[in-house]
Amino acid sequence: MSTEKKLYAYVRQEIVPLGQAHLHVSDLAIQRGYGVFDYFRISEGRPLFLEEYLARFYESARLMHLPLPLSDEALKAAIYKLVGLNALAVSGMKMILTGGYSDSGYDIVAPNLLLLQQPVTMPVQALQERGLKLITHEYVREFPEVKTINYAMGIRLLQKIREQGADDVLYHHKGIVSELPRCNFFLVRQDGTVVTPAHGMLQGVTRKHVLELATKRYPAVEATVTLDDIRQASEAFLTSTTKRILPVVQVDDMVIGAGKPGAVTRQLLEDLVRFEESHHQNQVPGE
Amino acid sequence: MSTEKKLYAYVRQEIVPLGQAHLHVSDLAIQRGYGVFDYFRISEGRPLFLEEYLARFYESARLMHLPLPLSDEALKAAIYKLVGLNALAVSGMKMILTGGYSDSGYDIVAPNLLLLQQPVTMPVQALQERGLKLITHEYVREFPEVKTINYAMGIRLLQKIREQGADDVLYHHKGIVSELPRCNFFLVRQDGTVVTPAHGMLQGVTRKHVLELATKRYPAVEATVTLDDIRQASEAFLTSTTKRILPVVQVDDMVIGAGKPGAVTRQLLEDLVRFEESHHQNQVPGE
Repeated sequence: MSTEKKLYAYVRQEIVPLGQAHLHVSDLAIQRGYGVFDYFRISEGRPLFLEEYLARFYESARLMHLPLPLSDEALKAAIYKLVGLNALAVSGMKMILTGGYSDSGYDIVAPNLLLLQQPVTMPVQALQERGLKLITHEYVREFPEVKTINYAMGIRLLQKIREQGADDVLYHHKGIVSELPRCNFFLVRQDGTVVTPAHGMLQGVTRKHVLELATKRYPAVEATVTLDDIRQASEAFLTSTTKRILPVVQVDDMVIGAGKPGAVTRQLLEDLVRFEESHHQNQVPGE
Repeated sequence: MSTEKKLYAYVRQEIVPLGQAHLHVSDLAIQRGYGVFDYFRISEGRPLFLEEYLARFYESARLMHLPLPLSDEALKAAIYKLVGLNALAVSGMKMILTGGYSDSGYDIVAPNLLLLQQPVTMPVQALQERGLKLITHEYVREFPEVKTINYAMGIRLLQKIREQGADDVLYHHKGIVSELPRCNFFLVRQDGTVVTPAHGMLQGVTRKHVLELATKRYPAVEATVTLDDIRQASEAFLTSTTKRILPVVQVDDMVIGAGKPGAVTRQLLEDLVRFEESHHQNQVPGE
């Protein structure tokens, strides 16, 4: 898939070439960082788990007092129209809802909706084999249950992550682990139990699927996860819509298990890929 | 001053009509709420305390790893060019620096600089006489020392502020007061000492001026301020670039002093207006 392909975007009730997708500077995202978003994958014209992503998007919008400018039906129609026009084999769709063009530069007005579809690159196999190294940082997102556009902390930490030769950062509060900037976190205890933090993190769609899949094979729980739990863990991994599952082999100076991706992580990735494929095959195109 | 006047804006090294001031949706402010800004007033073509606001803007940019696309000299030239074109009697200039047009939608690239000048309305006299009612909320900004564009908390609280019949919100952490979303906070103790929070707040330019002016008349300190100190205070007020000084007469259920604007608050506003006028008169236009 060439990224040179001419793509279209949906901006404020219009479909325009992506190159011409602009917002006026009075938009509250630009003025005040005020907006929510969500992101789902599309495979051969079929959005994966669309209902789940839309439900979360609507919940984020509601919690931030941002009324959607479109009905559920009209939003889906816009999504499918864009997907048809762009005709990408494998892609991701970002839905952004901002506070709108605000005269006062502070008050929410009529929210602006954007739909941006782009080719997506799934993690390379080499990363699956190597596993990731994380640093930690004490931080809880302001509205952990909301997918806001605020990634100031994660982006500001990119320099530190690079300096430490790490791949990403894991947030914790007084040693209680929550999530990464764009991923959920899991570990496998010595006794084989799969655990993911219960509080302070985004309700990841992939997190939910992986937890369900894990339950079929292992003891699996949502629970408090501490940095010390990581030190004791036999495996760790992250989940996200674009990354699916990626092994974590080191957190700060703590080498996890054997310092290599583990068998449970590999098994769950296999299960997740199969689950996605079966969902995809059972789905009626355009449904 | 009519707001119908045709205004110009500076957007990514170009001066364009304000109505055509757009950013592409790939900008990191829209994608990730990533940006810093600052804001100063302009009176009869002369920016007020420009050096102080620029210094803070540069420091915000540095702390968020956003290199300025212009030298100090070139930025000032752009500011004065815009001020000349717009020819507003009394106005405010917002400088916004975003993470730029990011292909990855996450990594900082070449930052985008915006200069947006708009007429400004100073608070009406009625507000000075009535004083403000605040609610409180437990919150510390993620980077208190940085003027980021992230006002998600303040804006999300607007609904609650309205519901409670209040004018604004005062942030505190475990009872230790820091600031309002867009203003600094001061109180006057029963013994006549003027106090403003020492930590966890933005280094307001007006805060600094008011503190200096207060020192000439009263005992004045930066110190820890608690909600209980507010309960005991004889006066309270807020400071900001556009609001100068506004009396606060109630915080949650705590009526401050006599429940009316106090003499120290009024005196400091008088001193501040005089200080601004003398600064303005001593300034060479275009300096």
